[in-house]
Formats: sequence, structure tokens, C-alpha cells
Amino acid sequence: MKALERLIKNLSSLPGIGPKSAQRIAYSLIKKDEEFNKALAEDIATIKERVFPCPVCGSLTETDPCEICSDPSRDRSLMCVVEQPQDVETIAASGAYSGLYHVLGGAISPLDGIGPDKLRFKELKARIGDGGFREIIVATNPTDEGDTTALYISRMFEGSGIKITRLASGLPIGGDLEYADRTTLARSLSGRTEI
Amino acid sequence: MKALERLIKNLSSLPGIGPKSAQRIAYSLIKKDEEFNKALAEDIATIKERVFPCPVCGSLTETDPCEICSDPSRDRSLMCVVEQPQDVETIAASGAYSGLYHVLGGAISPLDGIGPDKLRFKELKARIGDGGFREIIVATNPTDEGDTTALYISRMFEGSGIKITRLASGLPIGGDLEYADRTTLARSLSGRTEI
Repeated sequence: MKALERLIKNLSSLPGIGPKSAQRIAYSLIKKDEEFNKALAEDIATIKERVFPCPVCGSLTETDPCEICSDPSRDRSLMCVVEQPQDVETIAASGAYSGLYHVLGGAISPLDGIGPDKLRFKELKARIGDGGFREIIVATNPTDEGDTTALYISRMFEGSGIKITRLASGLPIGGDLEYADRTTLARSLSGRTEI
Repeated sequence: MKALERLIKNLSSLPGIGPKSAQRIAYSLIKKDEEFNKALAEDIATIKERVFPCPVCGSLTETDPCEICSDPSRDRSLMCVVEQPQDVETIAASGAYSGLYHVLGGAISPLDGIGPDKLRFKELKARIGDGGFREIIVATNPTDEGDTTALYISRMFEGSGIKITRLASGLPIGGDLEYADRTTLARSLSGRTEI
């Protein structure tokens, strides 16, 4: 296969890139600076060696432990539990959280054969067991699997005296009531707050 | 800057990839096979060396001349004039054309400072001048610039006895009349065909 064809084929196997976008990207690379292409190629070739899961929290890192786990200014009495490493980035980008994180590596999903034993619950228990935590914020996705996982965590730490909370579900800010789906609307009703 | 951050930043500078998609792609690369990443990196690093404009038609190629220009089975009495190299791929993929191509490298756009002298018209004139052509199909985009360019080409070969045609504009197949914009609808009316 020719290089351009192969490049387009490989690009279109990346998430969110269809054959048309892959073609556009490939043609744009032909026009880009040589330097940009070499840098991008180098990072793609070495990213698997450089990035690994933090042995403490499970998020992806280039240092051991990760920058968040080793940051003395973080609030070490707050733990935020997420499904995936990228969720850490998303919550960090909001700028509204200053505690620690724990990445489960997914959510409980019996249909997909993912039981609690496949996720990083043992590590979570050990970290919380080390003491000093006042709140665990469960930030799993607002899906059936995320709900099950949140319930599992709340049962896990029942009676420990640690407050277990979950991210609020409801209407997205800037959204339009008209476009909200029924389930989101129902959740935003049951979770309504006083003004 | 860290490798992962830099990778996300560089990916998001590619066309059609925003910061969120760049992040998804970067994380997916961490999960991909080492082999896939090395192959993709190699192609990105070397694509500018391997791919160059065909000296005959101006489309991008890895051989000199390109596969289409050197294919003896193509109909050498038909010339299709397009704006960009990727337009050749698009028309070829339709499977409805078997002639030769000529890439102008853009469309006439006085507002952007692109006059006929900046495009490959001289080369087109020379190729057509070599003789044997019975039709020039102008496949510039259905935009003001594409229209101007089509008009320029039709003037260029006025009186040469060569038929000059343009791709039909109208409703996209499978589309819905309700969603057609006014200009497209007007064009599809003025270009209506007998049934």
C-alpha cells in the first residue's frame, strides 16, 4: 500500500475520525512544516513508553507518583472517584476541585463482564483506610453503570463516618429546557434546589 | 511541556480536531498497539518526502508521473479540471469518470489576492494545446470563486471547438427538499431536466 493511503487508513481508525476527516488531515500534514510533523511523529511513537498509570491514583502520568498525588498543596481530606484517567483531566480543567483522585478503570457492568474485582476498588479501600478523608465524591458517569458503581462505593464505606457524595445531575448550563431528554429532566426535578 | 500535553496540543491543530477530540485520540494512542503507533509516526514523519505534486496534472503522487497520468487505459480525450488535489480522489471514488485530471491549485479569488496567474492555467493550456481533447469538464466548487474560475476556463477555450461542461448543481441525492437552501433550490430549478 502507498504511504498516503496507509496514513489515511491509519488515521481513520482513530476515535472520531472518519475516512473524510482522515483524508483532510493527511493532506494538511503534507502542507505542514517538516518540524511539526517530526515532533508529532516522535510523540506518537514514544507516548506509550512515556505515559503510564500512576501507581497511587491510577491516572495517566509521566512522573511517579503523578503531579496531583505528589502535590502538597492539594486537600488530602477529599477524594474524587472517577471511571477513566481522562475524567481526571476533565474535572481538573473545571478548576472547581482541589482534592485527590482515584481512577477505577471503568464502571461495574455485569453485562460486559466487568465485576468489582476488575476495577481498582481494593486500592481505593486501602487509600481511604490510611485515614484522614472526610468526603468521597463519586464522579462516575450519569449512566446505569455509573449509578451501580456509585451505589457500590456508598455501601463500601457505610458506617465509616466519611461523607459520600455524587456529582449533581441536571440541565447543562447554557442548555435549553426544550432539548433536555426526559431522564435528565426527571433527575433535575428530583434534585431541585431551593433558591 | 510534557509529552502528553504536547501531543494533545499538536493533534488539536489538525483540521477538524478540537481539544476534546485531541484528548480522546491521545488517550486512544496510549491503548493502541506499539506497532500501530510506530507505523503511524513513520508515515507522518516521512509523508512530506514521499508525496509531491505530479508534474503533469498537479495532483499529489508518490510516483512521477502519477498513476492516473501514466495509466494507458484512461480516456485521454476527457479532461476534468479541479481546484485541489483531494478533489481528484473524491471524483475518482465516485467511479463515474475515466478521463484525465488537471489540478489548478485553487480558484480565482480577487479578494484573497488569487488571480489566474497564481493558478495552473498555463499548464492547462499547454496540455489542452497538445491536442486530442473533446471535452473539458470543469469540476470547481459550486461557490462564487468556483463559478468565476469556470467562466474563466470557458472563455480560455472559446472557439477551440472543445466542449466545456460543468458539474451539475442541485439537490443532493437522498436529501430532503425541506432542508435545501434557497440557492441550491434555485439552481436545481434552473437546471431541471426532462423526465
